[in-house]
Amino acid sequence: MSTEQRQRSWWGWGWEDEALTDEQTAKLATSIAARFGLDGLEVRPAPRLADLDLPRPRIEPPAALAHLCSITDRDRAGHSLGKAYRDVVQASYGQLPHPPDVVVHPRDEADVVAVLEWCSDADIAVVPYGGGSSVVGGVEPDVGEGFAGAVSLDLTRMDRVLEVERTSRSARIQAGALGPVLEDQLRPHGLTLRHFPQSFEFSTLGGWLATRSGGHYATVLTHIDDMVASMRTVTPTGISESRRLPGSGAGPSPDRLFLGSEGSLGVITEAWMRLQDRPRFKASAGVHFANLATGAEAVRALSQSGLAPSNCRLLDGGEAALSAGVEDGSALLVLGFESADHPPSAAMERAVELCGDHGGRVPAGVTHTDTASTDAAGREGAVGAWRNSFLRAPYTRDALVRMSMIVETFETACPWDRFGDLHTAVTDAVHEVTARRCGFGVVTCRFTHVYPDGPAPYFTVYAPGRPGDEMAIWDEIKAAASEALLSNSGTITHHHAVGRHHMPWYEQQRPDVVGRAIAAAKSALDPAGVCNPGVIVGRSR
Amino acid sequence: MSTEQRQRSWWGWGWEDEALTDEQTAKLATSIAARFGLDGLEVRPAPRLADLDLPRPRIEPPAALAHLCSITDRDRAGHSLGKAYRDVVQASYGQLPHPPDVVVHPRDEADVVAVLEWCSDADIAVVPYGGGSSVVGGVEPDVGEGFAGAVSLDLTRMDRVLEVERTSRSARIQAGALGPVLEDQLRPHGLTLRHFPQSFEFSTLGGWLATRSGGHYATVLTHIDDMVASMRTVTPTGISESRRLPGSGAGPSPDRLFLGSEGSLGVITEAWMRLQDRPRFKASAGVHFANLATGAEAVRALSQSGLAPSNCRLLDGGEAALSAGVEDGSALLVLGFESADHPPSAAMERAVELCGDHGGRVPAGVTHTDTASTDAAGREGAVGAWRNSFLRAPYTRDALVRMSMIVETFETACPWDRFGDLHTAVTDAVHEVTARRCGFGVVTCRFTHVYPDGPAPYFTVYAPGRPGDEMAIWDEIKAAASEALLSNSGTITHHHAVGRHHMPWYEQQRPDVVGRAIAAAKSALDPAGVCNPGVIVGRSR
Repeated sequence: MSTEQRQRSWWGWGWEDEALTDEQTAKLATSIAARFGLDGLEVRPAPRLADLDLPRPRIEPPAALAHLCSITDRDRAGHSLGKAYRDVVQASYGQLPHPPDVVVHPRDEADVVAVLEWCSDADIAVVPYGGGSSVVGGVEPDVGEGFAGAVSLDLTRMDRVLEVERTSRSARIQAGALGPVLEDQLRPHGLTLRHFPQSFEFSTLGGWLATRSGGHYATVLTHIDDMVASMRTVTPTGISESRRLPGSGAGPSPDRLFLGSEGSLGVITEAWMRLQDRPRFKASAGVHFANLATGAEAVRALSQSGLAPSNCRLLDGGEAALSAGVEDGSALLVLGFESADHPPSAAMERAVELCGDHGGRVPAGVTHTDTASTDAAGREGAVGAWRNSFLRAPYTRDALVRMSMIVETFETACPWDRFGDLHTAVTDAVHEVTARRCGFGVVTCRFTHVYPDGPAPYFTVYAPGRPGDEMAIWDEIKAAASEALLSNSGTITHHHAVGRHHMPWYEQQRPDVVGRAIAAAKSALDPAGVCNPGVIVGRSR
Repeated sequence: MSTEQRQRSWWGWGWEDEALTDEQTAKLATSIAARFGLDGLEVRPAPRLADLDLPRPRIEPPAALAHLCSITDRDRAGHSLGKAYRDVVQASYGQLPHPPDVVVHPRDEADVVAVLEWCSDADIAVVPYGGGSSVVGGVEPDVGEGFAGAVSLDLTRMDRVLEVERTSRSARIQAGALGPVLEDQLRPHGLTLRHFPQSFEFSTLGGWLATRSGGHYATVLTHIDDMVASMRTVTPTGISESRRLPGSGAGPSPDRLFLGSEGSLGVITEAWMRLQDRPRFKASAGVHFANLATGAEAVRALSQSGLAPSNCRLLDGGEAALSAGVEDGSALLVLGFESADHPPSAAMERAVELCGDHGGRVPAGVTHTDTASTDAAGREGAVGAWRNSFLRAPYTRDALVRMSMIVETFETACPWDRFGDLHTAVTDAVHEVTARRCGFGVVTCRFTHVYPDGPAPYFTVYAPGRPGDEMAIWDEIKAAASEALLSNSGTITHHHAVGRHHMPWYEQQRPDVVGRAIAAAKSALDPAGVCNPGVIVGRSR
């Protein structure tokens, strides 16, 4: 079956035909029940589109835009929610409280301009939609009172690489290009953006930019922000186009205003992106540590060594067991270097030495690969197991939702000197709620990205929920964890963005002065206030 | 004589006692005349403070602030202009058209708050002043009509490192710390900010942040922006304090709003900065190329190799001759790697190999240094000559001003594919003006910083001026060069900031939408419009 013909799931992750089958789900339920010592787990059937009863659209597009618009149940249902745990829970019960009235599929920038004009004039909220993988309520049309309706602006028809400039390794790319669509167009040029968030297959360049996505590189080029040479953004009061520059010091960065604006100031339509040569040389290793704390010390040394590994993901014992098959309770560091120019042997050698200084062991040794001959680096052993589990995780999550398990993640970043306290506080806060509400819960932690001044810890929570009560329990866990993050020097998000779910903590964390500056900028650029209302700038209606 | 007792020049660069003596200046005049085939050069005497006739201050500070204020001629004259060529020319003629009415020396943040309150209430423009080394008119109180007066807010009393956090290699530092003052306080901790702009001795942390200064590192950590973990900024409507974080994705970066704001939104008072371990291992080499074009190809390959040299400054033949004593007309690449963790031998070896692929020769070989035993890396030969000339250049410039020579620099950044055209256009534009106005002129070019997608070219212009006509000639050169930059895909500034001199081109280059957003933010944070009027946000009065 070709990609074009495959159907996206309207309620869960990814492709419908990649979801766990009923049989696989039942098997998973048995294994989960055994693992956690539960008396069996009831599996609810997957929701059916035919069972939905969506309210009729409240608005009608002007004739000139009608050909871009869809009001099918599948389109409206599929654009009602992102892919957070609480989104999938709701959808699994067939509850879509805020479906868009209309889904608009612009073909080009002129269409986007026309849609913003229509919506500004008619008081219709515009919620940009890329791959729909938001886990923070960024794409749901829950826009509050005072609007005539809401459109979901699906940009995935605008998916072309418009120019490739080989000398500067740059390309001008439309914002609606999904990860694989974008990489497929760069591959013939020997180039790659090399931005691989877990959502890669189901997220777009524009979504990455709007949400300050975190990707492939564990160090240095962690966020998409640094890969941007220039951007075009359509606002209701004009188009912003920055200069394509390798670096500049002319005033506050124009691009940084829109990076992280999550549709609240306008719609990013294209960007000149800095690309990489496709890496040829790779070195990878799985380094085992007695526990997370000793592993963290080694990773801190690595982060401050200047070695700049491309992969430096430290899994605690629980995570290493669950997702990489490590059975002795040790923490696992998935360490990798890559280069298109030279074998990174010296860097890996020194990195392994540094890990050794902190008690790290490399039982399977270092794998060196020259992809001119093979592309199998790091696909085997604990590292390979982790990678496979990483990519399948969202599908597995959807199956767990059907058995009312609570399974969700959140992430942060904090200075190294605060990590120990933050980790304890977050773990305790989650355990307190799961013990009280679920009997027990499991919290695991990994580092997805690391900096010289601190790690980006990523937490996963598992607990048995109760049918109908999952969202309330999760919201309680999330609130407790978020308070723990904020009172222990963390950020409410390192790379999942703010959306609607994180607004209360984002507003706490953001300096009030900056909040007023952004609100003033929004009033200037989006005077009708129709751009993704309630996100980044709090609701004023 | 101790540092404390030394006097800063009120009209020229740096320390009064480091300026060229009359005798040295006369000798320089002879040598310059010979070099350029001129019939001798008349040397004007250096200006004298006693000859100035400054207007009386138009404002009087409130009693509560009087102890922070100075109205001495030396203070007011010294805070009247930055250190651009045109500034020093004006000052050398004793022309200070816009002296501040009062120079205020706050001791702490509360003082800054009080000053902004006074000035907002009394309609007095506030021009922040760090080391005063602006070369773009950023610190001159040329604030336009409509103000009762102008104060220069000199932050250099706020120069303390307030906290050092070793684990995360971070420190909280007051904005008024001059480079050496700051480094002196970090040295006992084995740490360094390692931000060494040419103005290092006479510029402050706050100035670097406000102007997005470019420093030591030729790659990756080029601008100060990336070394900031958090900032405090006093605005007339409140203090902004961001969280100290290694990375975050929570909305548009709060710090990036103030980085590059050049005092237009408020006054930066302190920042948590990311530090480095003091480097121990260094490798340096001078690589010779037939010309700038072949050197540029090698540097492009280096910039895209992932090797990340700390120094990668390519001088064209003219610059290599003038400032590094290279006599055969070849271009010189000053190449260096450094690390606190490991000898960068493998990186240097590969870099030299890459240069060799592009015809680069390393006649003096590579110097490897372990600073545990010596600190002499790169201090000899062509590289050492260049470094010495680099640091003395502004003093020499002041002497050249006295003989009515035109000597000034400007810098930009552009994509690699545009560099050839940009270089030609800029050189032609300058030559056209110098030929017409001066008989001839010399333009040289170097790369100060390089990126995978383009270089940051830095141009120096020399031409014989005419007494009384220097500024007009320079302004004509500057306008022609700036037009050439903007019409050839450059930025009006890579790391010299916008100030008042660059505003016309900055406003051309900046997307209008972003201009409106920043103006709206300014109105919200600085409703009286007293913060560095005319910089970043155009004058509205």
